[in-house]
Amino acid sequence: MVPVIAQELGSNDVLMFAWMNRDALAKTVALGEAVYWSRSRKKLWHKGEESGHVQKVHEIRLDCDEDVVLLKVTQAGDIACHTGRHSCFFQKYESDSKSWEAVEPVLKEPDEIYK
Amino acid sequence: MVPVIAQELGSNDVLMFAWMNRDALAKTVALGEAVYWSRSRKKLWHKGEESGHVQKVHEIRLDCDEDVVLLKVTQAGDIACHTGRHSCFFQKYESDSKSWEAVEPVLKEPDEIYK
Repeated sequence: MVPVIAQELGSNDVLMFAWMNRDALAKTVALGEAVYWSRSRKKLWHKGEESGHVQKVHEIRLDCDEDVVLLKVTQAGDIACHTGRHSCFFQKYESDSKSWEAVEPVLKEPDEIYK
Repeated sequence: MVPVIAQELGSNDVLMFAWMNRDALAKTVALGEAVYWSRSRKKLWHKGEESGHVQKVHEIRLDCDEDVVLLKVTQAGDIACHTGRHSCFFQKYESDSKSWEAVEPVLKEPDEIYK
């Protein structure tokens, strides 16, 4: 099981973080779309299978220790996050208030995404 | 313990992947430079303490599940990887040969970095 970072081709925005096992990586290569291992559901998860927000994979990178994968993708619907935002990393640490603040807009309400 | 992605401010290149515990995050905030938890050495690791390749932290992001951290950093020496490369993600999957190929240059030999 390896950590996977999904990065948007072009903008280079980091969209999300997930996990893959060997089978998920093989299916990602074969399909040309991101297939992760869902740790909560304990099964393969073809990202976008419910929401339609699939990730077309353009490039697959591996790190120096060969235990972390980086995908360069285009994001269907411009929405990677289940909250309806472009990126899952929408909370920013504000040092003044010492708190996390949501700084990116909801592009589509989750109720509309998961009908 | 949470996964951490270090992303370069400006280029948005993903430089490396590491881990933090609560103490590492607190020290990162206090110092303004990336402090990770080294899983191999089982201690806090102020990135660059040996190599000089510190990471100045400009922004700290948290994902939707609040269990993955994204740092936006500037990278001293332009080198994040212990192999002397800009990014740790220098191996690219080549579908023709079904192999991983190093596609980014070594900017400085590791022998020169870790004297």
